[in-house]
Amino acid sequence: MSSHTDQSAVTVLGLGPMGRSLAGAFLDAGLRTTIWNRTPGRDQELVSRGAVSARSAEEAVAASGLTVVCVVNYDAVDAILRREAVADALKGHTVVNLTADTPDRARDTAAWAAEHGVRYLDGAIMTPITTIGTPAAVFIHSGPEELYREHRPVLDVLGGNHTHLGEEIGRAAAYDIALLDIFWTAMAGYAHALAVAKAEGVTARELAPLAKGIGSMMPTLFEQLAEGVDSGNYFGEANPMTSTASTMTHIVHTSEAHGIDASVMRAAEGWARRAIGRGYGADGFIRVAEFLGR
Amino acid sequence: MSSHTDQSAVTVLGLGPMGRSLAGAFLDAGLRTTIWNRTPGRDQELVSRGAVSARSAEEAVAASGLTVVCVVNYDAVDAILRREAVADALKGHTVVNLTADTPDRARDTAAWAAEHGVRYLDGAIMTPITTIGTPAAVFIHSGPEELYREHRPVLDVLGGNHTHLGEEIGRAAAYDIALLDIFWTAMAGYAHALAVAKAEGVTARELAPLAKGIGSMMPTLFEQLAEGVDSGNYFGEANPMTSTASTMTHIVHTSEAHGIDASVMRAAEGWARRAIGRGYGADGFIRVAEFLGR
Repeated sequence: MSSHTDQSAVTVLGLGPMGRSLAGAFLDAGLRTTIWNRTPGRDQELVSRGAVSARSAEEAVAASGLTVVCVVNYDAVDAILRREAVADALKGHTVVNLTADTPDRARDTAAWAAEHGVRYLDGAIMTPITTIGTPAAVFIHSGPEELYREHRPVLDVLGGNHTHLGEEIGRAAAYDIALLDIFWTAMAGYAHALAVAKAEGVTARELAPLAKGIGSMMPTLFEQLAEGVDSGNYFGEANPMTSTASTMTHIVHTSEAHGIDASVMRAAEGWARRAIGRGYGADGFIRVAEFLGR
Repeated sequence: MSSHTDQSAVTVLGLGPMGRSLAGAFLDAGLRTTIWNRTPGRDQELVSRGAVSARSAEEAVAASGLTVVCVVNYDAVDAILRREAVADALKGHTVVNLTADTPDRARDTAAWAAEHGVRYLDGAIMTPITTIGTPAAVFIHSGPEELYREHRPVLDVLGGNHTHLGEEIGRAAAYDIALLDIFWTAMAGYAHALAVAKAEGVTARELAPLAKGIGSMMPTLFEQLAEGVDSGNYFGEANPMTSTASTMTHIVHTSEAHGIDASVMRAAEGWARRAIGRGYGADGFIRVAEFLGR
């Protein structure tokens, strides 16, 4: 069946900002692109660029051997795909689901797809909309490797880096969740830091050059800490947990002295204090990764 | 008085890893370096390199016109400096306090210094110990600009970048707190992400290359968001608060499904939900910086 998939046609379900950007990249590459969105009226610019706007989801998925889905979450995916007419039209076709949600939802969707004879890959987009179609885009995928290889030429049209993380279908979502965890926790820290700085009379623009310096330490540090965690080395010599906890307390106090909500840092401080209580005071803060689940 | 300070001598109080590194950099530059630590026995390597180990804090500060203090926090600073013998020996001398603590403690120490005729600068070290004496080191300072200029040649010996952030003495600590807030919140996110990834069968080393990619987006993003916050543009078009809140919920659910503490992300999610409740659902997440204090 694989070898018969028409590589010149693709369907995109979901025309939010990201879905429109994906469809645009397919159109730019000259693919016959069929589009559909639950809420009408988002197709006009794409139609003017040559997209075919389907009247229903079943019509849309019937038009191409490959359907890319990118909607707000898996509740939305289910509402679109899990109807008899759509399942029938998808039989023997491939769905690449680039919607972000949890690994369990990906596994559940894969089970539904298997029951209905739908070939299924799960994936996630790790970079902003503006990167789509450029070398800066980063995509991660999981599911049957053969299926991934078959559709890789069409996926490549979306630009950037594509990485197949394994056959286990939840793997892309697991990476996605972990990476979004890093991203949004850091953003919460930045938003909070801006609030504290402002209360101290420091504008965001004044803080930015030094914040940039802190940000630029992250990539190398993430790599070093990962090596350490896997090998049981927590880099406590230069920066022990006790010192981190003390720093966190300073941040909480300064924040709360200005009436600023410090709940995120309070929670992080709680992790450090718990680690100290368990006898990890001399280890680096990253040690908390080991016992958050216990 | 300024012009009479002997620029070839410096005292370092506090011989933790950072204090030893600072003293080492002064020694490498050929300065007459006097050292002292509350707990004895940390001076040997420095003495073998030519440092003079003082028998008391008062003897140490009497030996140089400039004393650099780097201890665990301002409680430790107070325990060392706020004794009559030390205050007398410091009269007319300069203290550069590189100890990390809150802006209020810096202001309080400056008031004590003014009462006792001690010239006072506050500062913070923004980079790890390994950067001291190298171009990668980053120092921030606040306090009287003239005093800063006078001692800048000796401070330059510590390497890297020195920035004077203003005359208001709490300013270096305010920047320091804000920057540490960014750093440690991001580290909490990374530690949590590693725990979630591990529970999903993804090792730290496997996640690291993609985590590095997320980290490398931070510097530019911090700068763009700062511009936005100061000008009231919250970049909600591509990534509205509603979508961020939904992502945060996915992270919390995935984490808690594995029995992993999600308190940090729960707190961040609370900020996003509160923002949505106030009508900021279409703005980007960074909008929360505006109302955390209200």
